[in-house]
Amino acid sequence: MALIVQKYGGSSVADVEKIKNVARRVVESAGGNQLVVVVSAMGKTTDGLVNLATRISNSPDPREMDMLLATGEQITIALLAMALHGLGFKARSFTGPQVGMRTDTAHTKARITRINAERARAALDAGEIVVVAGFQGLSEVDEITTLGRGGSDLTAVALAAALKADVCEIYTDVDGVYTADPNIVPDARKLPRIAYDEMLEMASLGAKVLQARSVEFAKKYGVPVHVRSTFKPVPGTLVTREERDMEEVVVTGVTHDRSQAKISILRVPDRPGIAAQVFGAIAETNIVVDMIVQNISRDGYTDMSFTLPRSDYGRAVGALQDIGRKVGAQGVVHDERVAKVSIVGVGMRSHSGVASQMFAALAREGINIQMISTSEIAVSCVIEDKYAELAVRALHDTFALGREREAAV
Amino acid sequence: MALIVQKYGGSSVADVEKIKNVARRVVESAGGNQLVVVVSAMGKTTDGLVNLATRISNSPDPREMDMLLATGEQITIALLAMALHGLGFKARSFTGPQVGMRTDTAHTKARITRINAERARAALDAGEIVVVAGFQGLSEVDEITTLGRGGSDLTAVALAAALKADVCEIYTDVDGVYTADPNIVPDARKLPRIAYDEMLEMASLGAKVLQARSVEFAKKYGVPVHVRSTFKPVPGTLVTREERDMEEVVVTGVTHDRSQAKISILRVPDRPGIAAQVFGAIAETNIVVDMIVQNISRDGYTDMSFTLPRSDYGRAVGALQDIGRKVGAQGVVHDERVAKVSIVGVGMRSHSGVASQMFAALAREGINIQMISTSEIAVSCVIEDKYAELAVRALHDTFALGREREAAV
Repeated sequence: MALIVQKYGGSSVADVEKIKNVARRVVESAGGNQLVVVVSAMGKTTDGLVNLATRISNSPDPREMDMLLATGEQITIALLAMALHGLGFKARSFTGPQVGMRTDTAHTKARITRINAERARAALDAGEIVVVAGFQGLSEVDEITTLGRGGSDLTAVALAAALKADVCEIYTDVDGVYTADPNIVPDARKLPRIAYDEMLEMASLGAKVLQARSVEFAKKYGVPVHVRSTFKPVPGTLVTREERDMEEVVVTGVTHDRSQAKISILRVPDRPGIAAQVFGAIAETNIVVDMIVQNISRDGYTDMSFTLPRSDYGRAVGALQDIGRKVGAQGVVHDERVAKVSIVGVGMRSHSGVASQMFAALAREGINIQMISTSEIAVSCVIEDKYAELAVRALHDTFALGREREAAV
Repeated sequence: MALIVQKYGGSSVADVEKIKNVARRVVESAGGNQLVVVVSAMGKTTDGLVNLATRISNSPDPREMDMLLATGEQITIALLAMALHGLGFKARSFTGPQVGMRTDTAHTKARITRINAERARAALDAGEIVVVAGFQGLSEVDEITTLGRGGSDLTAVALAAALKADVCEIYTDVDGVYTADPNIVPDARKLPRIAYDEMLEMASLGAKVLQARSVEFAKKYGVPVHVRSTFKPVPGTLVTREERDMEEVVVTGVTHDRSQAKISILRVPDRPGIAAQVFGAIAETNIVVDMIVQNISRDGYTDMSFTLPRSDYGRAVGALQDIGRKVGAQGVVHDERVAKVSIVGVGMRSHSGVASQMFAALAREGINIQMISTSEIAVSCVIEDKYAELAVRALHDTFALGREREAAV
């Protein structure tokens, strides 16, 4: 008998018919297994609640926002439990607080501190399917909290860790993790397995299938995460600890992120503390900067470039012009539409020349590289947005992702 | 400094604008007082949730129904707290479980067993307006429960008792308790005060302003309940313990209930156990019978009549015909449309002849009385439904309710 944690997102439970479908999907997995099912709020419910709040207040109190938003998942769990009863199965719903999901007090973006899983365990031992409201918990001072973006995935992974589940299945619109976005690369291939670190990089670099927080948690506690389709009963991608044979593959996938903008401050006097001054000032505007590149100094001056979410672009340009003047820079140049393309693979640790292969591939297509950043298992290039698809296809071909792995599987 | 518990129903918080209005109304009462505000779900929210559940299941599990319905009030408390913040006041919302409302395990109609009001007390002491989700609690086994019809009033009265509040204000569509329905009796008068027992009878006999359960609770713990208008800032009606001068008034009010039907079983053999047999069989159909009258026996046979909610009428007639055959009755007659008119007043205890005055008044109008039932402080008559308004006006005049009390106040 296995213990399986499943998670279904908002689009999988968007209406009554879809909830009934999820119930059928759940009971198909039930044969002899213990099941915990984590669900999100129905479709647009959360948006509707946020809209109510913003009609009351421009800056709603985070504690009350959590009180409000937590109702969304609570509705889904009750309905799903009823649907499971309708199929003749024992099931019991639990809110985040009831399932012992304890968090810190950072409302709207709380972090899980511990899980008291006794009630869930008791229900499982009583032969019940445990239905859990994702995204929510109870703080140290007994206030309802929510976990922020991707919170339901995190609930599922954390419960799987606490209950020592055999697997955490994340059901989504897509049927797994691909070597590249199949909308752009027709011969992109579903990966049967991917290492935690690769998934982490891909999540950070634009792949939307899993949030980095959940992958980090899964890695920390060694929870195998199976990303699969709500609608197609086929195996998806298993996110798992790194295995020896994974290193034989140099590049696992190509990701891209087209939601970025780029700003550069030109000819900043190059003296100690200048980067701290510039990025300290940006931090004060609450803009989250992604990639940062500083060129080597020439004549006592340097250029600093960084990328940021396009939605923050307008605000950032204004702030940067002020900062540029304060630090005596020559000026600020900016580009609202850039794309970041990245290659990811644990095999890069043991293979050299991967970055240069990437640069050569882009050069062959006449794509100019504006910024470069690397990590142990990823290389990212900022390019003109209009070349994004072309770049992804070129890299996918260059590293033979459509065929090389096919043979290996 | 007074401690005031206020309760606003679903129509008072039906949308964002109305919630903002309630917030303004609340802060008008705030000057120097401690405030607890109990709210219901917004307008049609509960109906919408019930509809979702019935689309999933014909007989939803009561535990899951409570899990589902409790979200309605939780949405309102968060929004009201935000609205109070917007007016510059400190406020904190609490679900039923958070406010320490403990109940038994009778899901969908739980009874309050005790209240641990420490959190509410601490928030009040910190200068916060305490906003509480009505209608809900936490069972002995830590399950979310709901209190059934009129549950939010009950939450307010129970919290007022637990916190030893100076008054429990119930804000509604009407601005108080009237001597009769003002829609029927133009010179009906708002009662400045009414005794718990009178309010109890009036609630049971058709007055819709307060549920009998809440009045019983208020009486038991001596909570003064002020029934008043959400929309007009004028005093309403204080429901309070009986005072000496109240007995000087014989009849306090006239109520009517037009949602009733009547069924009679004719010529039932009059032997011991026959009533138990008949009403036992009715009870098995889950139909709640209101008034029961059995005539004296003639020739070893008797007639039994009872009233019941019109919505149960069709089901009841069928069941009664079966029962009638079993007990050897002559037949069953029924009337789908009857009305019950009642007079209520604690003064009846010390005044005689009140019932005969009532019967005479109805006779003067040519209204035939079909059934009569009396309690210590009320007399009720079942009449043809078409005479309901006429009867109420005649009784209101006969007992001089429009003028007599006016002078006394």
